[in-house]
Order: sequence, then C-alpha cells, then structure tokens
Amino acid sequence: MHANNEIGTIQPVEEIGRIVKQLRANGQKIWFHTDAVQSFGKIPVNVEDIGCDLLSISGHKIYAPKGIGALYIRRGTRLHSQNLGGRQERGVRGGTEAVPSIVALGAAAELAGSELSVEANRLGQFRDRFENGLAERVDDYEFNGDRRSRLPNISNVSFRRIEGEGLLINLDMQGIAVSTGSACSSGSLEPSPVIRALGREDELARGAIRFSFGRMNNEAEIDRLLDQLPKSIDTLRRLAPRARSNAK
Amino acid sequence: MHANNEIGTIQPVEEIGRIVKQLRANGQKIWFHTDAVQSFGKIPVNVEDIGCDLLSISGHKIYAPKGIGALYIRRGTRLHSQNLGGRQERGVRGGTEAVPSIVALGAAAELAGSELSVEANRLGQFRDRFENGLAERVDDYEFNGDRRSRLPNISNVSFRRIEGEGLLINLDMQGIAVSTGSACSSGSLEPSPVIRALGREDELARGAIRFSFGRMNNEAEIDRLLDQLPKSIDTLRRLAPRARSNAK
Repeated sequence: MHANNEIGTIQPVEEIGRIVKQLRANGQKIWFHTDAVQSFGKIPVNVEDIGCDLLSISGHKIYAPKGIGALYIRRGTRLHSQNLGGRQERGVRGGTEAVPSIVALGAAAELAGSELSVEANRLGQFRDRFENGLAERVDDYEFNGDRRSRLPNISNVSFRRIEGEGLLINLDMQGIAVSTGSACSSGSLEPSPVIRALGREDELARGAIRFSFGRMNNEAEIDRLLDQLPKSIDTLRRLAPRARSNAK
Repeated sequence: MHANNEIGTIQPVEEIGRIVKQLRANGQKIWFHTDAVQSFGKIPVNVEDIGCDLLSISGHKIYAPKGIGALYIRRGTRLHSQNLGGRQERGVRGGTEAVPSIVALGAAAELAGSELSVEANRLGQFRDRFENGLAERVDDYEFNGDRRSRLPNISNVSFRRIEGEGLLINLDMQGIAVSTGSACSSGSLEPSPVIRALGREDELARGAIRFSFGRMNNEAEIDRLLDQLPKSIDTLRRLAPRARSNAK
C-alpha cells in the first residue's frame, strides 16, 4: 500500500521499488504492485518515482462514482486474465466496459490532479484543527500511525474506555459519519487488523475511530465535530461500566 | 442462453430446467445457469418458469449504463468467489459496489418491465417492416435463425456476394449502425461462430449482418435503412469482383 487506508501512513514504497530494480538486475523475475487507492489525489503519485510495475487506484476516493477503478500496467508487464470472457480488452478482462464510469474517473482524476496542492493544504488544516481541538476537550486517547509521514486527510484516534462501534453509532445519530476500519470489513466486529498490527493493546484496538476529511467538508463541520465528540465520549464512558455489569 | 445475442432465437431453456429437476430428484448434484442478457426486457423472463438456479442479465441491454449487470441466485445455491477481496457481499464479490450503476439498473429494469409488451410490439413492427421491405428491394439473401421462436428486436440477414464487415462500414458512413456479430468479438475478422453453427456455408457466414431495433428508433429510421441498404449492397457487389482481381 502506498498509503494505509485506515491510519493514512505513507509507506516508503520507493525503497521497495529500488530493491525490486536491483533484484531484477541480478536476473530475478519479480514484479511490484502497489495499492495507491488511498494516496491518489491526496499526495503526488508517480509510477516512475515509486518504481512499480502495477499501481491501482479507485474512483470513489476521488469523487468519481463508486465501482470504477484503474490499474496502471507498465509496458512489458504481462498479466493473466482473472476475468474470462470476450476478447475486448485484449483478453485481459471480459465484460462490457463501464463507459460512463470510465469517463467519470478520467474527469475526476484530472480535477484531483489540478487541485491537489490546494486541497491537500485545506484538508491538512481541517485535520490539524481537529487534532488540536481534541487535545483541549478529551482525555485518554492516542493517535494511531506515523505522525509525520501521513496523508493530510485522515486522523485515526483510539479512545480508552470506548467501543469504537458504539461511538460510530452515537456520532451517526448526530449526523456525523466516521469509520471504525475499512469498508471491506463492514459488519465484522473484530478490531481492525491495521490497529492490531501497530501493537495496540485490546482496549485501544477496540476504541479506534477513523476521522476522514474531504472535499465536501467545511470548517464549521470540524467545529461541530469538536463540539459533539466530547459529549458522545462522555455519554459512552458513563454508560460503559453499566453495560458491562448488565452483560454479567 | 435464453435468447441468442446474434440471431435472437429463443431457446427452449424450460426443457433444460425440467431435465435438471429430474436429475436432481434422482440424487444428482447439478446446477442450471442461463444467460438472459439478450432476452431480459424484450420478452417475459421468469426464473420459476425456466427452472434455473442462476440467471444473468446486463444493464446496457435495457438502457442502464454500460458496465453493470445482475446475477439471480436461487436460495440455497452456493457460489465460489471468483473475485477475492473484502467481505462486503458475504465474501462472494470483493470491491466497492457500483452504487449509482446498481440504482440505475434497478430503475431501468422497472421501466423495461412496465413497458415490455408495448415495446415488444413496437419493435416487432419495425422488424417486420424491415424484413418485408427487404424482400421488395434486395435479392440473394437469407434470414438466419428460427423464424418463429425469436426476439422481436433482432433481424439477422446473410447477403450473398458481400463481406459483412464491408457493409457494416459502408452503412456506418451513412450514419446507420449495424453489427456483424457480438461486441465480444469486435476486431476479429473470423465469421461469427453462431452463424457457422447454423451450418451456413462460408459465403453466407461472412455476409451476415445483425440489425437490431431499440427504444430510440422510429419508423422513419427503418425507412431510411430500407432506402440506403439496397444502394450499399449494390455498391459492394459491383466493387467485389474488382477487389478480388486486385488481390491476385
């Protein structure tokens, strides 16, 4: 992954690119794919800098319709078909092309590219406003992920004495959408494997919430979040011991 | 296939459904999938009548956006995932759902259902007008496929002493879009395997053209086709011997 989808940490994939290049120079057959779904449109993504043979992006992360993506394939990289059928796309992918979504992805990518630096700056300000505001209003929490090498739009926070799922539902009822992990694991009650991989203890893994800021957000919404969040956390922390004793 | 995509022949898939049911009653593990992409929205499609376990449809055949389809799965039919990834769709299909296209497919299906009989009648009139008009204006051709059990919107015709691809290009230059086979074989110069399977000799297989009529067509367009087609055929038939001698 070029940048992690839950905590926003930017990985040093260029190092992998250099290692792959070296191994290849020594005669090894090796290919390098990176998942840039989360980073594309948020920070510069350059296949030459990364040194990858394959790079995937997804439309809905850059405000194209859901259900469209793209795979960059470096010339000379040969793929096996995973989707048998017609010969339209040189046999690599059967099925009628999703033309409207493809066009929309192209337009969204152009827009994301032209607005990249302005938008990254704007989202970074939202995130900093949120994180600074949090310090003044809430206690017993920890930020997840690297504090420097990270995307401008994600803040992942673990709150002690909180079930992340409970906080998500509470905020949702107040019209605030947050996430406890990735959409791919919706419906799962297991703590995020990403937070686990950071070595977080159980309590922190279960209390992790991902706050993401986007094009449609404005400063007033950050302030509303900062106003609501301490109330929601307070409610849940007061309820939590009772819930535990009920479960006995 | 419930109905063939190139010639429009409706297959007696209900018979397959009955055979499958009988085999299953005798203890055999057997499943029945039918491709109803071409028939859905043109004639009634009922999974109970057909007796299938699985039935697939595609959006662009009923004026939904390209790139969306649906698979009917009878309760109790278990599928292996062909698309690994997230657990969103009970593990059967990874990837972010194409929500706008899914909604559009639902709306298009409702519309196709409510207009089915009126539209089938309208398209059948276009087809008959075309086929009757053809008899008066062109010679040396044959209709492909069953003349009775067929979709109302397709007429597949083989013209002698014509390369289908040449006629397609000629008509295209006149603003008339026809097809020589299926989109899945675009770019292939081989004659359609469907026409071949009918036992057609080479000349007829290479001279096959599929005329499809749809929601956006009107009667004036059928007449324009009937006016242009004899001219295009005449041009190509006069050119053909010359082209052959050039190739020597």
